[in-house]
Amino acid sequence: MKIAIAGSGALGSSFGFMLQKGGHDVTLMDYWDEQIQTIREHGLTANVNGVIETIRIPIDKPENIQDSFDVVFMFTKSMGLRHMLKAIAHTLTVDTKIVCLLNGLGHAKTIAEYIPTKNIIMGTTVWTAGLDAPGKVHLMGHGPVEIQESDPSGKSETLAIVKVLQDCGLNGVYSEDVHFTTWRKACVNGTMNSLSAILDANIEELFSSTQTHAMVKEIVKEFAAAAEIDGVDLNVDEIVDYINQASVNLGSHYPSMHQDISNRRFTEIDFLNGTVAKMCEDNNIPAPYCRLITQLIHAKEEILGVK
Amino acid sequence: MKIAIAGSGALGSSFGFMLQKGGHDVTLMDYWDEQIQTIREHGLTANVNGVIETIRIPIDKPENIQDSFDVVFMFTKSMGLRHMLKAIAHTLTVDTKIVCLLNGLGHAKTIAEYIPTKNIIMGTTVWTAGLDAPGKVHLMGHGPVEIQESDPSGKSETLAIVKVLQDCGLNGVYSEDVHFTTWRKACVNGTMNSLSAILDANIEELFSSTQTHAMVKEIVKEFAAAAEIDGVDLNVDEIVDYINQASVNLGSHYPSMHQDISNRRFTEIDFLNGTVAKMCEDNNIPAPYCRLITQLIHAKEEILGVK
Repeated sequence: MKIAIAGSGALGSSFGFMLQKGGHDVTLMDYWDEQIQTIREHGLTANVNGVIETIRIPIDKPENIQDSFDVVFMFTKSMGLRHMLKAIAHTLTVDTKIVCLLNGLGHAKTIAEYIPTKNIIMGTTVWTAGLDAPGKVHLMGHGPVEIQESDPSGKSETLAIVKVLQDCGLNGVYSEDVHFTTWRKACVNGTMNSLSAILDANIEELFSSTQTHAMVKEIVKEFAAAAEIDGVDLNVDEIVDYINQASVNLGSHYPSMHQDISNRRFTEIDFLNGTVAKMCEDNNIPAPYCRLITQLIHAKEEILGVK
Repeated sequence: MKIAIAGSGALGSSFGFMLQKGGHDVTLMDYWDEQIQTIREHGLTANVNGVIETIRIPIDKPENIQDSFDVVFMFTKSMGLRHMLKAIAHTLTVDTKIVCLLNGLGHAKTIAEYIPTKNIIMGTTVWTAGLDAPGKVHLMGHGPVEIQESDPSGKSETLAIVKVLQDCGLNGVYSEDVHFTTWRKACVNGTMNSLSAILDANIEELFSSTQTHAMVKEIVKEFAAAAEIDGVDLNVDEIVDYINQASVNLGSHYPSMHQDISNRRFTEIDFLNGTVAKMCEDNNIPAPYCRLITQLIHAKEEILGVK
């Protein structure tokens, strides 16, 4: 399969590494000069659950790429999605599938502005990746990657991509309800990521506080109200249990939003709590926790002078 | 006048210094051993708007004091009020006035559990004080100290204390509505103190963010709802203006709650946003901003292991 990775940071590069190792023709796309330079000169080094290997793999800015692809895996930050969709337009054919594995809410709608719904495949993954240096990434865990087509006509191609992900060791799973999975993952990110960033605490510290559990419940209630508007039924108690269980394995981990604040980068808050606050507001449903959390994170970005 | 200062930290010691310099018989009370030891051995050194002087002044733990007093100025932290009231009981006569200058809400009710209402004088001050080291304080600004009796029968004694404060350079002012002043000051502390502590920002940084202004307004709305339950009319726009004006003079100042968090001490959040959240909850009025802010500050205390 001819595959592009749009957004080749930690998780994107790691997926590119696994897919090329699995025998596919993979091209990485990114805008980060140091990453491009290092991978061109020294290759891409990936540590996959402790096994380290370096491979040669093409990488360039999307504008410089002349090929077209069967599948593009989207791994940008939420706020980079729209720009990337415009930048890769010339690499898409009428049949190119875009597999969206971004965190956050509302991305299917954004992608549908640029390509037909029949070519959109939405997904979530619990693979954890990190960037150790330009050209050096690590991939941890065992996945899975769950994906599902946005339009029923895309099912057979989605199953083919699931097979590719399985064959390449990425634990592909066909999701019967990716819409639900996306909301559930957004609940995880909208609680532990944002609270970790505000309280400057790792997951273990965060969940050691009884206050966290009360706040998580209120936040999830608001996500459930927004999910309902979106036609997704979230059981608050089940989601809270899921979040608590997820927290157990994360221990001293600082989630991405905490890393963003520490590194003075924009966060994805508008695509998590911010989206919920907006959806609820538009429907006259109160969502004050998501609203205040969004304001606090944006205040933090402003105070730190993030640009 | 025979005066005791109950709680001789930065502001308490400074007031004691000014009152003794003005010719009154002042005794400091505190539980901090280093402060007691240093003031006994080396005296109390105060820097009052740039003028530095050292005086001898008696200081002890309340339990060790045998005298009784005409007036006790209360300068404990909110959470230390009840303990101090019990500890000083033997130093009070049937006529001893307690002048309460604590930040926060609900203190008049607490004091009324221990002494008759006729002896309670409530107040607020905008004097700013700091502790440079044990036995070394600075006092900045020009006040005022506004006070008013809780029961009309106490008016003449209150006016006498106002006169004492004026004569001692502490800018005493008789307040016609200390209940309002207390709520207004609580609005200042419940916005800039708590947000500064959560966002780890000084006042200038905090108010440079457009988000802060939106959050301040929401918080003040909730304070106004609680004040109304308490029979106090707060005009939200006026209070917001007052807070913005107050912020202009504070610049690089980190408010007390930020200092408490930095020094891993308990904060006064329960006597500010926490009280508003509780009052509103008891009256079925939503106050989610105050509630979440209280939870975040308590989470921070728990995560830092404050004991």
